[in-house]
Amino acid sequence: MSVIYNRVALIGLGLIASSMAHAMRRAGLAGEIIGTARSSETRDIAREIGFCDRVVDTAAEAVVGADLVVLAVPVGAMGAVAAEIGPHLQDGATVTDVGSVKAAVIEAVAPHLPDHVHFVPGHPLAGTEHSGPRSGFAALFDNRWTILIPNGADTTATERLRDLWQAMGALVEMMDAEHHDLVLSVTSHTPHLIAYTMVGVADDLSRVTDSEVIKYSAAGFRDFTRIAASDPTMWRDVFLANKDATLEILGRFTEELFALQRSIRTGDGDALFDYFTRTRAIRRGIIEAGQDTDAPDFGRTGKRD
Amino acid sequence: MSVIYNRVALIGLGLIASSMAHAMRRAGLAGEIIGTARSSETRDIAREIGFCDRVVDTAAEAVVGADLVVLAVPVGAMGAVAAEIGPHLQDGATVTDVGSVKAAVIEAVAPHLPDHVHFVPGHPLAGTEHSGPRSGFAALFDNRWTILIPNGADTTATERLRDLWQAMGALVEMMDAEHHDLVLSVTSHTPHLIAYTMVGVADDLSRVTDSEVIKYSAAGFRDFTRIAASDPTMWRDVFLANKDATLEILGRFTEELFALQRSIRTGDGDALFDYFTRTRAIRRGIIEAGQDTDAPDFGRTGKRD
Repeated sequence: MSVIYNRVALIGLGLIASSMAHAMRRAGLAGEIIGTARSSETRDIAREIGFCDRVVDTAAEAVVGADLVVLAVPVGAMGAVAAEIGPHLQDGATVTDVGSVKAAVIEAVAPHLPDHVHFVPGHPLAGTEHSGPRSGFAALFDNRWTILIPNGADTTATERLRDLWQAMGALVEMMDAEHHDLVLSVTSHTPHLIAYTMVGVADDLSRVTDSEVIKYSAAGFRDFTRIAASDPTMWRDVFLANKDATLEILGRFTEELFALQRSIRTGDGDALFDYFTRTRAIRRGIIEAGQDTDAPDFGRTGKRD
Repeated sequence: MSVIYNRVALIGLGLIASSMAHAMRRAGLAGEIIGTARSSETRDIAREIGFCDRVVDTAAEAVVGADLVVLAVPVGAMGAVAAEIGPHLQDGATVTDVGSVKAAVIEAVAPHLPDHVHFVPGHPLAGTEHSGPRSGFAALFDNRWTILIPNGADTTATERLRDLWQAMGALVEMMDAEHHDLVLSVTSHTPHLIAYTMVGVADDLSRVTDSEVIKYSAAGFRDFTRIAASDPTMWRDVFLANKDATLEILGRFTEELFALQRSIRTGDGDALFDYFTRTRAIRRGIIEAGQDTDAPDFGRTGKRD
């Protein structure tokens, strides 16, 4: 691989930005990587690990001379960062972000960017339940989708950013911001909210102790706790920023849940059986598409087949 | 290890029974293992794999001379199997089951058993999303809990069954049937119903294609699809048989979900942040208790730490 950007500025140094740094280094995609984070503790950890060539104290300083600027802060902080860096951006630079919501980020960021930069919002659909600069690793994006929002930007700039993501191991798809927000509401935001809720219910139930919930979690519950352990700040901002799509999908969800609840109450076994049979097909599709392992229990147990 | 039961009869040869056969053989716990299943196809597969010493055509035949009989059929079929085997059970035999619901199974099975046998219901909290005789493996129960319901049975018989489970690798806990059904409703049944519902919603949404749901599933959704791929017959029976506890926990779940939905609608970021922070503690507890891996994404991704 060869260098795609001469100087990349990473604003925010959590799981995604640190993984990008590792992935760019793995393939030699950036001449130089400059990083910054709001918290001095995060900056110190990044310096200690050394995944950036330089760690600087402010976003304004980080973007100077960068031909790619990556906003990797919580969605609710994007607007303020854009306002800070706007006056310091190099002519012709590309600005992108990694936020989980796109329409709200565009609305918050675009007004602060000068006309001489290319704004190409993005969203890598990758992550783990861990967060912070120590959690990053080069393989995070391998064979995972990254969605880019062309958003009227220059085609050459968009393709260059697509090349970077592909060289970091990702598969890239383009779509508009509104469709992104609906798709992600289904595949990510609503599942996370539901997982948080289920874990909260278990935590509240006084007749079942926390220790019982923990001991017997392997029966299904523990799968929910993984995504309910994700970064609270990030997820607060996601739900506030993707309110309409989330409320819409939640409405569909409760409607279906109530229908199943009624089948349970009335003892309609056929309806339950049909529903549970139908949902198996999607799992098969996910495995065939290489987006999950078919090993039982995600490979946690002794058998892998 | 030494032999704990001279002849074990497995009625039903799916994931749990076949795993028990493998686990008993691993440690030499059964003098002889006799298996049977309702479907001739299942019996043929069991014969081909050879995890039983003998596979016979009927449950009545299987239990003859057995000192342990394991009912490993869907919860809804337990009563009929008990009626079939009742007259053929050996004096002093222990009868157990592996159903996911306990009060309803006791109600269905107990009336058919003669006084000269010991009925000790059980539930191994282990399983994967796979089913059938080919899906079993010896390590399935290792370090997982099995719950036994003493149910007034002879202490010696109960302890012998506990010894078997421990020798198959399991941790064993005793509790009464009603408490079991409530605990499992929280840690297993309701999470499964919610997962099925979320997958059903995604499948229904015509503006988001199935192919998009599959492509972008790594963002959270795929964790739900694993447990929503579990055996439909088994789960239909679970919900019908554990109706009261499931409806109670579903009521709590929707109450909490509506509170979070309101926080999203009104933009109450503090309430969301507090909720999402609280649920992290349970995840930590599960990992500390050795009931899940701390490797990011269950170890599916490139990094294990």
